[in-house]
Amino acid sequence: MEQAYVRDLARFAGSEVVIKGWLYNKRSSGKILFLEIRDGTGIVQCVAQKKVVGEESFKAADTLPTESSLVVEGKVRADERAPGGFEIDVSSIKVVHVSEEYPITPKEHGAKFLMDHRHLWLRSRKQSAILRVRHAVIKAIRDFFDGRGFICTDAPIFTPAACEGTTTLFKVEYFDQAAYLTQSGQLYAEAAAMALGKVYTFGPTFRAEKSKTRKHLTEFWMVEPEVAWAELEDVMKLAEDFISYIVAFALDRSKEDLKILERDTAKLENVKAPFPRVSYAEAVAQVAGTGTEMKWGEDFGAPQEEALASLYDKPIIVHRWPAAIKAFYMKRDPADPKVALCLDVIGPEGYGELIGGSQREDDLAELTKRIVAENLPMEAFKWYLDLRRFGSVPHGGFGLGLERTVSWICGTKHIRQTIPFPRMLNRLTP
Amino acid sequence: MEQAYVRDLARFAGSEVVIKGWLYNKRSSGKILFLEIRDGTGIVQCVAQKKVVGEESFKAADTLPTESSLVVEGKVRADERAPGGFEIDVSSIKVVHVSEEYPITPKEHGAKFLMDHRHLWLRSRKQSAILRVRHAVIKAIRDFFDGRGFICTDAPIFTPAACEGTTTLFKVEYFDQAAYLTQSGQLYAEAAAMALGKVYTFGPTFRAEKSKTRKHLTEFWMVEPEVAWAELEDVMKLAEDFISYIVAFALDRSKEDLKILERDTAKLENVKAPFPRVSYAEAVAQVAGTGTEMKWGEDFGAPQEEALASLYDKPIIVHRWPAAIKAFYMKRDPADPKVALCLDVIGPEGYGELIGGSQREDDLAELTKRIVAENLPMEAFKWYLDLRRFGSVPHGGFGLGLERTVSWICGTKHIRQTIPFPRMLNRLTP
Repeated sequence: MEQAYVRDLARFAGSEVVIKGWLYNKRSSGKILFLEIRDGTGIVQCVAQKKVVGEESFKAADTLPTESSLVVEGKVRADERAPGGFEIDVSSIKVVHVSEEYPITPKEHGAKFLMDHRHLWLRSRKQSAILRVRHAVIKAIRDFFDGRGFICTDAPIFTPAACEGTTTLFKVEYFDQAAYLTQSGQLYAEAAAMALGKVYTFGPTFRAEKSKTRKHLTEFWMVEPEVAWAELEDVMKLAEDFISYIVAFALDRSKEDLKILERDTAKLENVKAPFPRVSYAEAVAQVAGTGTEMKWGEDFGAPQEEALASLYDKPIIVHRWPAAIKAFYMKRDPADPKVALCLDVIGPEGYGELIGGSQREDDLAELTKRIVAENLPMEAFKWYLDLRRFGSVPHGGFGLGLERTVSWICGTKHIRQTIPFPRMLNRLTP
Repeated sequence: MEQAYVRDLARFAGSEVVIKGWLYNKRSSGKILFLEIRDGTGIVQCVAQKKVVGEESFKAADTLPTESSLVVEGKVRADERAPGGFEIDVSSIKVVHVSEEYPITPKEHGAKFLMDHRHLWLRSRKQSAILRVRHAVIKAIRDFFDGRGFICTDAPIFTPAACEGTTTLFKVEYFDQAAYLTQSGQLYAEAAAMALGKVYTFGPTFRAEKSKTRKHLTEFWMVEPEVAWAELEDVMKLAEDFISYIVAFALDRSKEDLKILERDTAKLENVKAPFPRVSYAEAVAQVAGTGTEMKWGEDFGAPQEEALASLYDKPIIVHRWPAAIKAFYMKRDPADPKVALCLDVIGPEGYGELIGGSQREDDLAELTKRIVAENLPMEAFKWYLDLRRFGSVPHGGFGLGLERTVSWICGTKHIRQTIPFPRMLNRLTP
């Protein structure tokens, strides 16, 4: 008999199947045993009668500890009251491994305890749902770009120099040299875009931030598309289409998981392009209008992002920020050189910046001047300047952090729950 | 008028289009100019007549250096003799940026020169073809697992301990601790498989090998599926289906690129499951039979792999290797505890090991004994042992190196050409 996964039970209605899984929960009436079994794709209730499975099997199952592994055979029966719509009428039970006393119980545990047991905590209903949503978001990201002719070009993890500042870099002993772990694949994506037209990098990036807030990981995944011949307008369009696609995909594929997470999906249904677009100058006025402190030239903090987000029911594109607070590689607006041709997409519900991007400076003299002005090591950027020396073209792109996006879609404020094994200031295990 | 990509020209036959790209090559007859323009998706010949584009444009284009960027408008004309089947009859030419003298010329360059200019070398016909094949292989890998209900669970890059030995680890300053860059996501994938059933990790992995051969990178991508309830037989089946899928996908989607690479695809057409399966003991006898030195108990080197591969026209699954030369976590064969329930898939044409995998030891006492015997730090493996403490189940999986696979499919012996920005013992730039 074939192993059936809980997710696929509808296909087996009325048939005998084998379920292989772990005991999630159970209750007994003395003659009937209700076993909730999880197999990684879902949880199904299996109903075992003593007279059917026999005295011995019944007793073994009746005393089985949580998370023991077992193989159950039985017939799939449709039942409207069951969470997935189906139950199993058990014909036989085989215990594979009797678990020791499981450390994670239905009672409340502290965050440290759960993180110390992350390798087991992953098995819980909510944590496994979050990881399945993460999987759906990854797939949405890749499908979006693959379907539009982008080529995935992985950026190197080992870099000789910093893209943005040096204070938050992790240093590696690279044979007899020093290397640093990448903070962004963008500069490499720019080179690849000149070779392949439309590209994206999607891999882990690293920030040695000494911050303990719930928004920070030292290791997180980032996707960074880069498009030759794209100007700011094109980048904004790509960003809103991209976010809309991810949200629609997750709403479609992760319905059950979002239900487990008790996510209010009405707030996500509304996330459809086009998004409201406001210039930084307009945004400053709107934030100030809510009574939140804000002056032209300053960066947004969480209060400013939340004040602005409260005025809209969709992600907001804020474009043309003061050049002085943005990265050296962003192109200045010819119509107003005080501002850069860049955008941030600010998520709703207090999730903050989802996307940061820009049109890139494509003029060799301008970019050289900027590198000098910011006191960056010219030698390290020699190859990057070459992109403006040999057939320079307008181009642009953005970065989206995977974990922050998953956190928003799942409606969880704790970014550490959106990656299988989070790494933080004080967390390097398990 | 819409920008058309060279790859899509068939859709625009007979229509006016805009091509945005870089000058790859040109020749002139005085009155007609043949411009080969590349846009990242392909190269198209654009035919410009002086009387149509005007004296000034003609002259600008006629003297334009290689890799200058330009925008060309014209009508798409089917032409059987053209490489992609189409040419452009140019109506206007706009030069966007006049390139400086391009350092990479059609003449031969040394490997060091090309690698120093990797950011530009990517633009060449062959290098961009290899990167497009890499993209197709990545997509095949993800589609294969996603389509079979696997959940992508990214393993952490920062690890506190080594999975296999410590001599080839990269050390990172992690705040006031030491961390090491991951060599394999497998142990984490095992934890995730107990939570989600079928999972895969797919990310960069690191080996500080002081080797300069054409087969070694310090940073390379690896995909590692892990399946709860899978035994060796299931893992072998998964491995051959997986490789067959990747090859069929690449043959279908990368036809043009494999032509550019002059790949003999006849040798790939044959890569279809089932693969020949031989035990290590049988393989040793077969290798010895070819006259190559080989004794039971030794690992295969390149000569042994090549000797074995020469006897078959498909990848070969070699299973049940001596336990003593394999990793501690592999399950011993109950029928013969000298050997492990493991497999290597050895690729044809001298490409060596494509896959290494096994059924994992699922018995707590056995695994503990192994960790002690190999003098591994017990404390670091406490969480890993927990997987055998709380509902242990048979499980297994394998790892496949992306770059080696791309190298095989492309038919290039130089693995450094199969990743956008390779990192090697003496190579950390650009």
